[in-house]
Amino acid sequence: MNSRDTLITELNVLANFEPKVPKSYQDCEFLMLGNLVPSVQRSVIEQLRQRPKLIVMDTMNFWMDTMPEELEKTIAMVDVLMVNDSEARQLSGQYSLVKAAATILRMGPKFLVIKKGEHGALLFHDNKVFFAPALPLEEVFDPTGAGDTFAGGFIGHLAKTKDISFENMKTAIIIGSALASFCVEKFGTAKLREISANDITERIEEFVQLVHFDINLK
Amino acid sequence: MNSRDTLITELNVLANFEPKVPKSYQDCEFLMLGNLVPSVQRSVIEQLRQRPKLIVMDTMNFWMDTMPEELEKTIAMVDVLMVNDSEARQLSGQYSLVKAAATILRMGPKFLVIKKGEHGALLFHDNKVFFAPALPLEEVFDPTGAGDTFAGGFIGHLAKTKDISFENMKTAIIIGSALASFCVEKFGTAKLREISANDITERIEEFVQLVHFDINLK
Repeated sequence: MNSRDTLITELNVLANFEPKVPKSYQDCEFLMLGNLVPSVQRSVIEQLRQRPKLIVMDTMNFWMDTMPEELEKTIAMVDVLMVNDSEARQLSGQYSLVKAAATILRMGPKFLVIKKGEHGALLFHDNKVFFAPALPLEEVFDPTGAGDTFAGGFIGHLAKTKDISFENMKTAIIIGSALASFCVEKFGTAKLREISANDITERIEEFVQLVHFDINLK
Repeated sequence: MNSRDTLITELNVLANFEPKVPKSYQDCEFLMLGNLVPSVQRSVIEQLRQRPKLIVMDTMNFWMDTMPEELEKTIAMVDVLMVNDSEARQLSGQYSLVKAAATILRMGPKFLVIKKGEHGALLFHDNKVFFAPALPLEEVFDPTGAGDTFAGGFIGHLAKTKDISFENMKTAIIIGSALASFCVEKFGTAKLREISANDITERIEEFVQLVHFDINLK
């Protein structure tokens, strides 16, 4: 099979994947939809008898290229969309991330997180914007999984605090960024498995220091 | 003449440029060396009978390509070096900006500012690092002069406050970033000529809001 055939086969497998939400998950308040076929993401939302308090969706350029209508239908159902900067531009048809965010927020989500890798992340909500830097690292050993780790830290903080305000989402983004900064330091999940709660607190403090300034316009 | 000949002619003109520091400038406490032939920048330092309190130097990849030794000699004489991210990588031979900064700080400067355009700026000093975001803009009309505007705002704040601490340099970077964000909104210096002190204060407040978060690890 050539690579196109392989891709189509893999797509068919993905499209036929029918996750069944277990009964014990019916009361979930926070739903994080990892990047997958948009129709599969949607089927998870539809299986829940009660809409979660917050639905976060990660997606990618591949679905924008191959099934934009399916994708937009799913995007319209979520509260927070997570994409990277080039995906935000593709999805909106806007180069300026400020304009891209305005366009995407009209598609349904109330919040938009734009991930910029080593350049940090932006959170948009109404006319507000928050910027979280990425920690400048000595070495990025393996960036694989950084986006998923970010998403996990983000939804984890929101689910733990049950506070979905813009202010608390800022904190969630810093926590997601801190966890992602560990992820890239070793291969796979190795680093994440060896850190302690104290390591995370220390790393978060580095983020605080990184952007902290007192404007004193003498 | 082909473009290489033109370039060489221009270089000769630049290399023969011999700026004379006026007597009235002899007591200058703050010296900002704009990007120019490194030997010309150095001649300005050497003409000053008393070393200024702070010497800031802007430079670019072109001098790294054409006269690296001249450049390094000048860099060794300054307190603050300003380059962009790719120049920091070229000058140091390090991809990681953290490692690049460590290498450059061993070349003489006590402070290093790495400009990342739309991705903000980093300030390195000893083992400390500060990150200032760029303001996400609806439209970047003309980026020409943004780097020089940044440098002007930076040295302007330091000269006004006469405080060259790391803390005050953070403020200087935010002020430089705020001014640069105006510069790109119109062609040339048009926007800079029409803004008021109040516009600048408001813009700085946007920077404060952009990165402000209260970590509340409930």
